[in-house]
Amino acid sequence: MQDTQRNEEFIEVILGRLGEKRFYHSMCVAKAARELAVKYGADPERAYTAGILHDVMKEAPGEEQLQTIAAAGIILTDVERANKKLWHAVAGYAYCRDVLHVEDTGILDAIRYHTTGRADMTLLEKCVYIADFISEDRDYPGVEAIRACAQQGLKTVLFEGMKFTIEELAGKGQAIHPDTVSAYNQIIISDSEGNE
Amino acid sequence: MQDTQRNEEFIEVILGRLGEKRFYHSMCVAKAARELAVKYGADPERAYTAGILHDVMKEAPGEEQLQTIAAAGIILTDVERANKKLWHAVAGYAYCRDVLHVEDTGILDAIRYHTTGRADMTLLEKCVYIADFISEDRDYPGVEAIRACAQQGLKTVLFEGMKFTIEELAGKGQAIHPDTVSAYNQIIISDSEGNE
Repeated sequence: MQDTQRNEEFIEVILGRLGEKRFYHSMCVAKAARELAVKYGADPERAYTAGILHDVMKEAPGEEQLQTIAAAGIILTDVERANKKLWHAVAGYAYCRDVLHVEDTGILDAIRYHTTGRADMTLLEKCVYIADFISEDRDYPGVEAIRACAQQGLKTVLFEGMKFTIEELAGKGQAIHPDTVSAYNQIIISDSEGNE
Repeated sequence: MQDTQRNEEFIEVILGRLGEKRFYHSMCVAKAARELAVKYGADPERAYTAGILHDVMKEAPGEEQLQTIAAAGIILTDVERANKKLWHAVAGYAYCRDVLHVEDTGILDAIRYHTTGRADMTLLEKCVYIADFISEDRDYPGVEAIRACAQQGLKTVLFEGMKFTIEELAGKGQAIHPDTVSAYNQIIISDSEGNE
């Protein structure tokens, strides 16, 4: 069975692993990711599935997240180890691959890179990354501007998301993942070269 | 003759290559770098020489900066190419090494990394990097706080400098050099591991 046909099962999984607020958030992200996929030409069903699962490990204890990562044979970088908030995306990837047996590597990568982004993101990865910023449940200052931006173009909103993340982390003096900076720089460089 | 004994010659060079304001800035940085070196145990004379020369190429036309870099066999990264403000440090390094025949690699590296910083900076590199933030001629908002910070410890002021740079670049949507992010992250990681 295709991973996209297992959504009921995946909703059961996150209902068991997440509290009310984050369960609601996950379903809102799934919906927003599907809408972005329709708008920008990614596969809506894969975006929806990745949205459901993107935070599956976010409420697991830190120790369990690290164990899931280690069991998957993934070695965290120094920056990843230093910032607990980065664990759940990698742990979520590992959990979906090794425990839920999700086979679609595009969905898996969309989960893995939903927090940091990375250079050369796929369309699917971009939809999930952005959905996490603009889902209905979000109410941070400036969310309306980001939502409006998401309607204007994928590159602009992606850039605004990365910019927001980097400014917020630097403002708090927290570690910044090099993947986020690569993704951010790549957009600037492609602009300066006149590419889309 | 040691490079540190050639300061009069180097002052002549920057007098010829820089306008009044930047000449004054360079001499202020030299003085501040020497003071920081005395305070934190780097070689004051090498810090002074690096300070004199750190902006030697800053007023050269972009084309000349790129030619100097290419002639030195240095290939800029995509991020460096995309941000003109990053050229002068690399061009200054190349000019000092190949035209002025500065032989002290510690001085040369302090010039090369004075704008971006990098992970594993030497004490000399740190002194020049910080001197460029706190020299007498600087009057940006917040400079007094950074000056006070420089008296309290090298790591703290270095971190504040990197943080300031990253926030400023992200705020303006400009490319951020990965070396700056590595240096910034390294301080956070060493703190979280309880190291100095």
